[in-house]
Amino acid sequence: MSGIARFGVSIDSQLIKKFDALIARKGYANRSEAIRDMVRDTLVEEEWESGEQETVGTITLVYNHHTRELDHALTDMQHKSFHQIISALHVHLDAHNCLEVLIVKGKSQEIKKIADRLIGTKGVKHGKLTMTTTGKELA
Amino acid sequence: MSGIARFGVSIDSQLIKKFDALIARKGYANRSEAIRDMVRDTLVEEEWESGEQETVGTITLVYNHHTRELDHALTDMQHKSFHQIISALHVHLDAHNCLEVLIVKGKSQEIKKIADRLIGTKGVKHGKLTMTTTGKELA
Amino acid sequence: MSGIARFGVSIDSQLIKKFDALIARKGYANRSEAIRDMVRDTLVEEEWESGEQETVGTITLVYNHHTRELDHALTDMQHKSFHQIISALHVHLDAHNCLEVLIVKGKSQEIKKIADRLIGTKGVKHGKLTMTTTGKELA
Amino acid sequence: MSGIARFGVSIDSQLIKKFDALIARKGYANRSEAIRDMVRDTLVEEEWESGEQETVGTITLVYNHHTRELDHALTDMQHKSFHQIISALHVHLDAHNCLEVLIVKGKSQEIKKIADRLIGTKGVKHGKLTMTTTGKELA
Repeated sequence: MSGIARFGVSIDSQLIKKFDALIARKGYANRSEAIRDMVRDTLVEEEWESGEQETVGTITLVYNHHTRELDHALTDMQHKSFHQIISALHVHLDAHNCLEVLIVKGKSQEIKKIADRLIGTKGVKHGKLTMTTTGKELA
Repeated sequence: MSGIARFGVSIDSQLIKKFDALIARKGYANRSEAIRDMVRDTLVEEEWESGEQETVGTITLVYNHHTRELDHALTDMQHKSFHQIISALHVHLDAHNCLEVLIVKGKSQEIKKIADRLIGTKGVKHGKLTMTTTGKELA
Repeated sequence: MSGIARFGVSIDSQLIKKFDALIARKGYANRSEAIRDMVRDTLVEEEWESGEQETVGTITLVYNHHTRELDHALTDMQHKSFHQIISALHVHLDAHNCLEVLIVKGKSQEIKKIADRLIGTKGVKHGKLTMTTTGKELA
Repeated sequence: MSGIARFGVSIDSQLIKKFDALIARKGYANRSEAIRDMVRDTLVEEEWESGEQETVGTITLVYNHHTRELDHALTDMQHKSFHQIISALHVHLDAHNCLEVLIVKGKSQEIKKIADRLIGTKGVKHGKLTMTTTGKELA
């Protein structure tokens, strides 16, 4: 189990004033919280660049649910990659449009490949991969 | 109801060769499908820049579920913005870490504000806003 | 003239260990320097979102210099926007390809517009707008 | 030398209407031009992901020119990487702030490393790497 470290930051006083205003608008309770978020964000970015660690991504897909081939493709691909797609959420946006979010665990290269395939499927109007983390390494 | 239009693209033959190889790797069935995706992607980007249309975003949060204050904050904020957060998916990544995806509908400025607040909450290790679309305007 | 402020950050000791390794790889002399960069980066992003302050961008264009129309377009557009394009650098990449970087000062909306026009000109193979800052507000 | 290929795109008529409006605002002469830009943009992105081909980037740095150490660092690093930094443009933004754009040729991994080092140097207020291309492979 790891403890809490403390360190000091020296910074121009005008710069920190602007930063305080910005983090207040974003709803941060204090500077440490905002800076920890920046630190973690940078570490997650690097995790995805290296490609070797296990990580987590979410794939967001908006599609027309009348397109039958898509349903099959989605089901098929989810089962092929069943060990990596750990959960899914389906929402009916209106009479025609659905949004589906898949949560995928694996190496970044593999997750990117699954995302490419799903986003490229006929009937998917818009798709995005969001790169996040298992949280394990980010105390 | 809208019909299908057809138009021709003239392009250097080496360029289209490279493009064909790329979209094959990404799993596209044909060029039209790949180009429609690029067109829609560009339109969604602009939708988010203009800020005035109703759109959809997903907010991905990884957090330590032992942090009690966070649960309260999340619940509280979801209820305050209840007309905008239309669904949520919760996954236990391991004994400590949870991933939550919220689907939010509204003007892009409002969605960004909700995302900022949630990502800035104590206990959230990593947060990202993914900008997508209602699909309505994207035939 | 503004002074130097100091503040403390509390952070999990494993998190700061990972961060130290990352900033060492990136060549930062110390944590304060790395954190000041993150703070400034966030402020510049917001500057570009608000659209009302004067800011600076660089526009990178790779193009085939045999395309005559492009030269005219570039010259023409640079003169029309002469109060905003403050400098330009031209490099011959090989017998056919040139790279041009323009430095543009103005409101973010105006700079984006100039970038769109130039990137959209026939003969430009690749173009990118880089959003930076006047530096004035970033002590 | 390569010829020109032509291919047809089928697309929903409402979608192409919106796209036409967007590319008119961006100043494109016609659809082919806009689509070629998207194709090239996607290819450049992949070039940078693969990391093995020779490519080109521009590094934008805003810094306070009173900071002596920085000048030395910049000069030193430019000479160390002299085979990769092929040109540089320096602009005085005001009495205190300078903007420098470096054009760098090499493998994407090496260019990223140079960018990280320079952006991390004390005195650099803001730095960005822009990933572009030699243009060679993009007819």
